[in-house]
Amino acid sequence: MADQIKVFLNEDEIPRQWYNIQADLPHPLPPPLGPDGKPVTPDKLAPVFPMNLIEQEMSTERWIDIPEPVLEKLLLWRPSPLCRARALEKALGTPARIYYKNEGVSPAGSHKPNTAVAQAYYNKVFGINRLTTETGAGQWGCALSFACSLFGMHCRVYMVRISFDQKPYRKLMMQAWGGECLPSPSENTEVGRRILDDDPDTPGALGIAISEAIEDCVKSKDTRYSLGSVLNHVLLHQTIIGLEAQKQMEKISEYPDVVIGCCGGGSNFAGISFPYIRDKIHGKNLRVVGVEPTACPTLTKAPYVYDHGDTAGMTPLLAMHSLGHTFVPKPIHAGGLRYHGMAPLVSHVLREGLMEAAAIHQIECYEAAVLWARTEGHIPAPETSHAIAQAIREAKRAKEEGKEKVILFNWSGHGLMDLAGYDAYLQGHLHDYHLSDEDMKKSISSTESYPKPPSL
Amino acid sequence: MADQIKVFLNEDEIPRQWYNIQADLPHPLPPPLGPDGKPVTPDKLAPVFPMNLIEQEMSTERWIDIPEPVLEKLLLWRPSPLCRARALEKALGTPARIYYKNEGVSPAGSHKPNTAVAQAYYNKVFGINRLTTETGAGQWGCALSFACSLFGMHCRVYMVRISFDQKPYRKLMMQAWGGECLPSPSENTEVGRRILDDDPDTPGALGIAISEAIEDCVKSKDTRYSLGSVLNHVLLHQTIIGLEAQKQMEKISEYPDVVIGCCGGGSNFAGISFPYIRDKIHGKNLRVVGVEPTACPTLTKAPYVYDHGDTAGMTPLLAMHSLGHTFVPKPIHAGGLRYHGMAPLVSHVLREGLMEAAAIHQIECYEAAVLWARTEGHIPAPETSHAIAQAIREAKRAKEEGKEKVILFNWSGHGLMDLAGYDAYLQGHLHDYHLSDEDMKKSISSTESYPKPPSL
Repeated sequence: MADQIKVFLNEDEIPRQWYNIQADLPHPLPPPLGPDGKPVTPDKLAPVFPMNLIEQEMSTERWIDIPEPVLEKLLLWRPSPLCRARALEKALGTPARIYYKNEGVSPAGSHKPNTAVAQAYYNKVFGINRLTTETGAGQWGCALSFACSLFGMHCRVYMVRISFDQKPYRKLMMQAWGGECLPSPSENTEVGRRILDDDPDTPGALGIAISEAIEDCVKSKDTRYSLGSVLNHVLLHQTIIGLEAQKQMEKISEYPDVVIGCCGGGSNFAGISFPYIRDKIHGKNLRVVGVEPTACPTLTKAPYVYDHGDTAGMTPLLAMHSLGHTFVPKPIHAGGLRYHGMAPLVSHVLREGLMEAAAIHQIECYEAAVLWARTEGHIPAPETSHAIAQAIREAKRAKEEGKEKVILFNWSGHGLMDLAGYDAYLQGHLHDYHLSDEDMKKSISSTESYPKPPSL
Repeated sequence: MADQIKVFLNEDEIPRQWYNIQADLPHPLPPPLGPDGKPVTPDKLAPVFPMNLIEQEMSTERWIDIPEPVLEKLLLWRPSPLCRARALEKALGTPARIYYKNEGVSPAGSHKPNTAVAQAYYNKVFGINRLTTETGAGQWGCALSFACSLFGMHCRVYMVRISFDQKPYRKLMMQAWGGECLPSPSENTEVGRRILDDDPDTPGALGIAISEAIEDCVKSKDTRYSLGSVLNHVLLHQTIIGLEAQKQMEKISEYPDVVIGCCGGGSNFAGISFPYIRDKIHGKNLRVVGVEPTACPTLTKAPYVYDHGDTAGMTPLLAMHSLGHTFVPKPIHAGGLRYHGMAPLVSHVLREGLMEAAAIHQIECYEAAVLWARTEGHIPAPETSHAIAQAIREAKRAKEEGKEKVILFNWSGHGLMDLAGYDAYLQGHLHDYHLSDEDMKKSISSTESYPKPPSL
């Protein structure tokens, strides 16, 4: 049975509830704190998020129903296939069986629409007809534009100017779905105008784009703001990945020895792994590995602190592994993994000893990505290549140990919009970056005055 | 049952033979002719194609086994899903049920790898380690680079210079799979150097790129040339699309009233439709519609003649609908449909009255594509949008007539590499082009001295 290459689920086998790991955590998640150092209350978030999503953010219910209209839209591309990477196994000569969940089949090309569709829906039923957001590399802006088009909502995306200029196709994708994409900083907001006054040629930054999206949201009628990772409700919406994978693995009588996801803000990793971490909490014997770039070693190197989710310090303080909100990662091509912090839930799970973390240099990741493309076919996103590189490490170890290990990883998206990195790699122009202890100390010092999270 | 959105086939349900329509044609296909006006013999083609593919080109066997190593590679993405476009149906308010075969799930993003993998394999077992080809918009160059990477073969693609410059991501895709992509005309060939001497700034043309690829092939050791459409064996390899669709429709107890494919060289149309045309020949009552751009109306307007397959006149004469090998279509965005001729088998099937043809303007096609993207999600290729536009026409007619029509079409590929056309459409910059009778008379005059195909 384990011979099968692709495992599909029928429409009626799609999971009908999301899994909320908060219900099973050995210790509760430390709450987000407001400027006064006290836990944030729902009303404080109301200008930015609709109340139904704020409730979901704070819920500790184990299972949360996926609304029917959300399911209907997810079914446009879900359940996503679970595939076995037999050609890669052969190329590696490994006794390991490598499975991957292919999230690249979504219209936007990644896992991001899983939460974009849910967030658009919850805003819509709350009476909101317009969402603002920011995007760096462009994956999230595309996903939210797509989701808004399905519900007839307006979407405005502030895209970091340097990406806006370098990746014109991302903007065109958003526009095809009716989204509006502006280079940030823009003339649309006070913060944007101020920054442009100082430096008309600024390349922009994610922190600025977040500030513009929030300012636009707060000032506009019927508008809320939407975030593509980090927060609890975003991770919740992604658990459909792991829940489907569990059903699919069961169909072929397989169970993973190791589950792998790449980690930027944490949502695709949480999506594949949290249902398995639940098994682990209940005594199952398996390893769960989050993989990040060595250039942005949040899980493997950064302290667990209270810090802002954005560069400008506009969000509440979140308890998480963070390199400091002023940290600017080196220009690796995996833009989606260049984030100074890590989802509070993922950070907490690491603290609880329920997962491991690994950091990999980008050249090893591109090596893995090219081997993948030339054996399995699809060209992976630079972010996804980190999960592939770790899967290959595990498969090679299985070969050395002569073990029939079962590996499962999340193939989070395709790289068709990110081919410049492949070009740089193939031409030998890529650099690996290492964060020194000294530089980290410097960047983390911005959090020194903040409250400290409770110890376990 | 017809409620289901996606119909999958398991690995062991994939068709194991291709369908050769030549076995069922009421009248035999007129043979290709050499420069002497006589039917071309296999040995004449041997410097350009391997003998196993030449035999396949000329075979009249009804069923041809798909070699196991080809099946193994096709299984990387096949069987492709059959999906129902319920969101589009709702948006149109039609009683029709619209099904589509999603060929966009292949690594190269279109149906092209179905034949690229087969051609690479047949060359490989014939002892060939290197293929040359040309590409216009880039779809075919990507597909062949991908296929060659799977068999460890070298692939050199001559890409029309203006596309090479306008679509840099296409070249990067080919390179990720180890393919070599050169702008054509190049300094690599005599014909290229000659043309560059005359005009160093020439934008190039598909005819020139074909000449370069053939010259490179004929001059090199262990090298053959590969074509992405038009020829019989190419269409044969694509019939797996329709054969899968038949199995999938049967699973949900559906049978199409109308089958639709867009037509450039003819291969994706033949892929979805030939197995159904077989049913038609055996008495089934259904319509089969090929859709082409009004700017390049080969099936709807051009005469049935003997003409060259390439602009430079290097190929044998093929009996087909042709606008004349010197015809240069207006710059519509569906580059894959800008071909002066039409596959001899498709042309013959039209003559036999076994299919209909329709021509649609590009603005109506982009309208259809945007409606598709905003309801069904995936952004279609400009070529695919022609099939969507026809499906929408059929669905609207079903609504007018109050009929529960079943529509099936081939969603031949995604448009993520072709977003510039969407931008032009959304900004209102697109033009529709109509070919006047006078202009056609002029372009077709280049075939006047050639032999005439026999009448039916």
